Amino acid sequence: METTNLSKQLEFIKEVDKLKYILRRTKLFNSDRNENDAEHSWHLSLMALVLVEHANFPVDLLKVIKMLLIHDIVEIDAGDTFIYDTQKSHDNTEEERVAAERIFGLLPDAQARELIAIWEEFEEGQTPEAKFARTMDRLEPLLQNTSNNGGTWNEFGVTYERVYAKKQVIQKGSTRIWQYAEQLLNDSVENGILKK
Amino acid sequence: METTNLSKQLEFIKEVDKLKYILRRTKLFNSDRNENDAEHSWHLSLMALVLVEHANFPVDLLKVIKMLLIHDIVEIDAGDTFIYDTQKSHDNTEEERVAAERIFGLLPDAQARELIAIWEEFEEGQTPEAKFARTMDRLEPLLQNTSNNGGTWNEFGVTYERVYAKKQVIQKGSTRIWQYAEQLLNDSVENGILKK
Repeated sequence: METTNLSKQLEFIKEVDKLKYILRRTKLFNSDRNENDAEHSWHLSLMALVLVEHANFPVDLLKVIKMLLIHDIVEIDAGDTFIYDTQKSHDNTEEERVAAERIFGLLPDAQARELIAIWEEFEEGQTPEAKFARTMDRLEPLLQNTSNNGGTWNEFGVTYERVYAKKQVIQKGSTRIWQYAEQLLNDSVENGILKK
Repeated sequence: METTNLSKQLEFIKEVDKLKYILRRTKLFNSDRNENDAEHSWHLSLMALVLVEHANFPVDLLKVIKMLLIHDIVEIDAGDTFIYDTQKSHDNTEEERVAAERIFGLLPDAQARELIAIWEEFEEGQTPEAKFARTMDRLEPLLQNTSNNGGTWNEFGVTYERVYAKKQVIQKGSTRIWQYAEQLLNDSVENGILKK
């Protein structure tokens, strides 16, 4: 039984290596090199660890970090969808559900169910942990884009209004971080790197 | 006070982006592309999450994952040292201590102290959490090298005896994973991808 568990877990561990090849639109800080999903997941997990004092409510940090470590794994099959894509919904596509079943399904059954449930909780964004995890997911590209003269906002012609609408999710997890983010968006307009 | 905390934390978050440029000797699974430290830290954290049932003793998983998320951050200043390097000690160099003070020192003081203490605990490898975290750190390149026809073992002419000596650290954290690892090393000799 234990042997079976370990061999299944190792298959999963090998499979998720593919996340290192899934490129996001967003570039690294002060860089023109695209970030990949594994780097992104690491960075968000570390951000949660460091910023947890700013959460609007007590959160189970281990659960937040579990969410962030796994939140993009479905993109191994479904690919990264650009958050400002107007053709394709960013979240909860059927393609992502099938991917979750296949990839987490490599694990022993109880573990697969646990991780799929955590991924769904993140996607739904209703619990304190999901809200705070999503705050991290929205904050990182904001910091990256401002370090890159507007980054994907300029590259894809995304306006202040659309960015502002997407970034408001930040305040559900942290009013304090939202105050900072809102200021950064206003500064970006003043600096000419984000167009109204 | 909170403002100051947040701005310090954001400086740290930007600084650690550099971990994405620190390349390890080891390659991704079935690949000739070097792994970077951020990808590596993500992978180990996820491995700990998935493999924790095999730890030799109860561990605080959050602490294990904190260790793994930050364990290589000092390499931003000190660089990656190859584990089979005969000229330079892999662990606990003075250069790494200075790096820890500088990089974690960007954080608010109490947080900097906490993360430096966790990094030191990992380096010393004595507590249950440090032992299990180090099991992950030794297991990943073993899996990668066997997927890559010997990988760094072949590339740098490292013998079975030296690999075996380094990999024994695995059993301090997990007897079960060590049984698997030992078998994998023996199979590697039989398959001719690791030389006695």
